[in-house]
Amino acid sequence: MSTPLPAEALVGIPGGTLITKTPEEGRALAMLIARHTIHQIQPDLDILKAGRPGYSADPAMLTAASQVVAIEFQTIAAANNYWR
Amino acid sequence: MSTPLPAEALVGIPGGTLITKTPEEGRALAMLIARHTIHQIQPDLDILKAGRPGYSADPAMLTAASQVVAIEFQTIAAANNYWR
Amino acid sequence: MSTPLPAEALVGIPGGTLITKTPEEGRALAMLIARHTIHQIQPDLDILKAGRPGYSADPAMLTAASQVVAIEFQTIAAANNYWR
Amino acid sequence: MSTPLPAEALVGIPGGTLITKTPEEGRALAMLIARHTIHQIQPDLDILKAGRPGYSADPAMLTAASQVVAIEFQTIAAANNYWR
Amino acid sequence: MSTPLPAEALVGIPGGTLITKTPEEGRALAMLIARHTIHQIQPDLDILKAGRPGYSADPAMLTAASQVVAIEFQTIAAANNYWR
Amino acid sequence: MSTPLPAEALVGIPGGTLITKTPEEGRALAMLIARHTIHQIQPDLDILKAGRPGYSADPAMLTAASQVVAIEFQTIAAANNYWR
Repeated sequence: MSTPLPAEALVGIPGGTLITKTPEEGRALAMLIARHTIHQIQPDLDILKAGRPGYSADPAMLTAASQVVAIEFQTIAAANNYWR
Repeated sequence: MSTPLPAEALVGIPGGTLITKTPEEGRALAMLIARHTIHQIQPDLDILKAGRPGYSADPAMLTAASQVVAIEFQTIAAANNYWR
Repeated sequence: MSTPLPAEALVGIPGGTLITKTPEEGRALAMLIARHTIHQIQPDLDILKAGRPGYSADPAMLTAASQVVAIEFQTIAAANNYWR
Repeated sequence: MSTPLPAEALVGIPGGTLITKTPEEGRALAMLIARHTIHQIQPDLDILKAGRPGYSADPAMLTAASQVVAIEFQTIAAANNYWR
Repeated sequence: MSTPLPAEALVGIPGGTLITKTPEEGRALAMLIARHTIHQIQPDLDILKAGRPGYSADPAMLTAASQVVAIEFQTIAAANNYWR
Repeated sequence: MSTPLPAEALVGIPGGTLITKTPEEGRALAMLIARHTIHQIQPDLDILKAGRPGYSADPAMLTAASQVVAIEFQTIAAANNYWR
């Protein structure tokens, strides 16, 4: 038995574009894209929830996750010409 | 004994191009390229299947996999001039 | 029970821009963005504080954290045309 | 006693150029460059072969290897102006 | 009790610029920036010294540290237009 | 007691330039820069030699080292405009 994630949690690029109005929105998009990638690889909410407590209290995991967000943000920032 | 993957799972760049119509398709391509690289290194489906349950329930592994997708996506997004 | 971080610690891009006057300010922003990403994933101050002593005395963790800062700085430096 | 790899397995950039006709060939080159780097660091075939079974059945190792290929491919794709 | 690092060891970008005369100076700056990031996260010299022997004799740690330097150098090399 | 590395093994950018005639020479330079970074962090040859057997027979270590070379090569390839 498993609890599938809703369809909107499985979209690769929420909103369908890398262009955002502000750096803050671009950062939020980077975080969202990183999360949705995890959803696409593991779409069972129960398994994701089971891993969450250990994951989010482990500094090594938090650092690894923040690195993925940093890489996604590089792409989004370049797409937006750094909101210059 | 081993179960070889079908030939199409071993293609490096499915579709033969980095150009896609939308960011969503570009993201799907990034995921596919990342998967096919794994297939090229380990083309035995039985071994891949055996590793899947542990892999996809382990937050560290999911994070590592999502980082590879993020890197592949950087390349695809640049190729498409960020779909601006 | 948990101690939530203050709202300003949860901003993705403090100051709302990637543009800074000097490389030194850009570096400080990279460090801040990296920290705030951690905050966004784990907004409970108690859990963050509990992990801090082990984290900040472990060379592997310090190295991993410094890599995230290096990646964020790449983005900020490019945004500022390297302060040339 | 050791079994040295043949000279052609130790070339850093097989073919001597980053330019390829197609993305598929570029991807194959990325994989080859990644492998040859391993060969250059460890040129004893016996040691490489001994590590192979454990390596290629370990999802963490496969993911790490695919990340190296992704990074090499970034370089090759840029060199080829993304085969646009 | 702790031994704080001197103020100059906590500067993010020593010299206040990414521009250097030579690649060799750029490389030294990359190394310095990487070290100062560690200092900023962990400013207690005693803790840093305690970790040093294990750290600097562990090939995995040395490799991880050298990767951070490589990433910092990418930024510095781009800032200097590769000293072409 | 320790055996210091010779001075030339401690140069950050051997040859003093990122420009090379061929991709093959660029790749060799990437490998050399990666090695010299290790030397700069750990300049005692005895410690380096002690770590070598375990390091060079461990697929995870070889993969990590090859990733550093891949990152250094990105910089060198860009510096040389990809030898186009």
